[in-house]
This record gives sequence, C-alpha cells and structure tokens, in this order.
Amino acid sequence: VTSEDQATASTARRPGGRSARVREAVLAALVAELAQSGYGGLSLEAVARRAGVNKTTIYRRWRTREALIVDLMLARAEEVVPVPDTGTLRTDLIELARAAVANAGAPEMQAIIRAAMSEIPHEPRAAAAMGDFWRHRMALDTVIVERAIARGELADNVDPQQLIEALLAPLHLRMLIGGEPADEGAIERAVDFVLGAAA
Amino acid sequence: VTSEDQATASTARRPGGRSARVREAVLAALVAELAQSGYGGLSLEAVARRAGVNKTTIYRRWRTREALIVDLMLARAEEVVPVPDTGTLRTDLIELARAAVANAGAPEMQAIIRAAMSEIPHEPRAAAAMGDFWRHRMALDTVIVERAIARGELADNVDPQQLIEALLAPLHLRMLIGGEPADEGAIERAVDFVLGAAA
Repeated sequence: VTSEDQATASTARRPGGRSARVREAVLAALVAELAQSGYGGLSLEAVARRAGVNKTTIYRRWRTREALIVDLMLARAEEVVPVPDTGTLRTDLIELARAAVANAGAPEMQAIIRAAMSEIPHEPRAAAAMGDFWRHRMALDTVIVERAIARGELADNVDPQQLIEALLAPLHLRMLIGGEPADEGAIERAVDFVLGAAA
Repeated sequence: VTSEDQATASTARRPGGRSARVREAVLAALVAELAQSGYGGLSLEAVARRAGVNKTTIYRRWRTREALIVDLMLARAEEVVPVPDTGTLRTDLIELARAAVANAGAPEMQAIIRAAMSEIPHEPRAAAAMGDFWRHRMALDTVIVERAIARGELADNVDPQQLIEALLAPLHLRMLIGGEPADEGAIERAVDFVLGAAA
C-alpha cells in the first residue's frame, strides 16, 4: 500500500483528505532525504520516490525544492502553531511562544531549519525561502499585537513585528545553539519581558 | 616565511605578539578548513598545516576542535565587540549591537556559526561549544545592564540576560535567515524596543 493509495482511499472519507495526505507523505520524505543527502543533494525525484507519489504530482504542485520546503514549513506551522485569540495579550503570547517552540523544536523541523541555514550563504534561493517563511509567519503573528492595540491593551506606537521578534527570536536562537526547546519558565519570562514594552 | 616565523619575529617587538599571531593564523586556517571540509571533516592537523604552525602547538593549546572553535570565537568577539561603557544605557546598547552585528556578520564568523549549527544535533560537543560561547558573551554583555541598574537608569527587577537576548537574538536570527547584517535603523529600533520593555 503506497501513500498515494492511502491518499486515494481517504478522499472518499473527507474532502481535501488526499491533498493533506500527499502533503504529509511528502513532508516525511523531504525530512528523510534532507537527513540523507543534505540540502545541496536534495532531489524532487528522490522525495517523490520515497513518498510513494508520482513525481509529476510534486513538480506540478511545488516546482522547486525551495518552494516545496517553504510550503511544507508553512503548512506545518499553520497546523501546529495556530494564531491564538484568547482575548488577552499575555495569554495569546504564551500560547504562541509555546506552540512555536514545540513546532521549531521538533526534530524534523530542526533538520529543515539547520539544513537551510547551512546553505544560505551559498544558495540565494535557500535564503529567499527562509525569508519567505519568516515574513509569512510574522504577518500571521503580528495580528495578535494589532488586536491588543485595538482593544487598548497596548499603546499604538508599539511595533508589532519588533515585539513578536523580541519574544520568539531568543527562544529560537537558544534552540539553535543549545539544541533543546525552551521550557515553560523561559517562555513566561520572555513574554513578561516583552510585555514591559506595552506598559 | 611561515606564520610561525612571522609570529617569532614579532615576539621581539611586543610581548604577547607571538601568541596573538599564532591565534590569528590559526583562526584564518580554521575558517578555510571549515569552508573546505565542513565541521564534520575538520582536523586539527590540517588546520596546523594550513596555518604554518607545528601541530603540537595546536594540540598543546586547544586539544579539541571544539575548544579551538570556542576560544577563537571568544578571542575574536572580545577584540571586535568590546563591552561599551559610555555612561548611558542606550548608547552602550547601540554600540554593543552594532559591534555584535559587525562581528557575527563577517563571512568567517558566519561560516563558523553555520557550520556549528548544522552539526549541533549530531555533535553534542558542537552544542556544548556554542553554548559555552553564548554564556561567556552573555556574562560580559549583561554588565552593561547591571551598571545601568546601579546608576538608577533601570529598575532592579529587570533581568539583564533577558534584555540582552531580546536585543541581540532578533538581529542574529535575521542575519542567519536573511544572510544580511542588520542596518543602523534596525539596530536603533531594536534598542528602543528593549528600552521600552525595561522602562
């Protein structure tokens, strides 16, 4: 039973199921290929073969390996890191940071992030792909801050991206350096620090 | 004329000169070897050969490639990123951030940082080395915040490391993602954000 067969079977059960299953199989294959061949040696044919999907499916949908990587990172981040809307900035930020740490700290995401980072100086498309991902996520996450400004929780001269980056970048960098996701205490201290900017 | 010869010649002129020249030659050789062989293939013998120094000099002084990398990163950071003491927190932070960006953004430091990051999941010693570097630099940089607290510029409940990380991590992460050092405007916005958070 290939992933494509499983995907086809699932289509009968729920709309969009095949597409989601293909994406999931391709993400798993991408991670395995990155681990085996590195970013430089990554081929879409090999990803297709390992995912058990037709290579034309991959080419039609993603075209380049950078587009594939960005799309899969975004798809996964959207699923694992929904944009919280609890009604309170502090709770929103804690939920966001917790989910972002869980997502970026997962071994398969660490593999993608580290592979892309090691290639960025030699591969302008890798830099563009990571930049695309970061900009897309920032556009989602800054909504949290904009809502807090609209509710009057924050002054309207606070730069939403500055706040989100001051919160998430130290957590991401510590993971990249130490190889360990931040714990709950570190997440709350980071949130309370950036909330000082709101006061 | 080898680096060792040059180093010996310089000893006559100023104390510590030989040691500094060996370190400089070894840093240059380390960067070139990292670029050629990657972190995994790095050998101290090859670094010694390329630096034109005796390999026992390297083994006696550094012993492991991780110790070599940390020591050279720290030596370079101390030289390029002195801890500012201008009497004002904002000016200190701007000078610190500007120097940190110049240091970490230099191609040879980017090569070391990216090589170490790509190895961290497979190489516990690479993780320990980067962690050592970050802790050493934090211990230096947090003095800036402690002095501001002592002067009464900041409340004494501000966590110095939280402030320094909220300032430097976004600048470092943007460099790692985008491959470009932050400009002066980005540095000043980052400083003013953390000052608002700490106020």
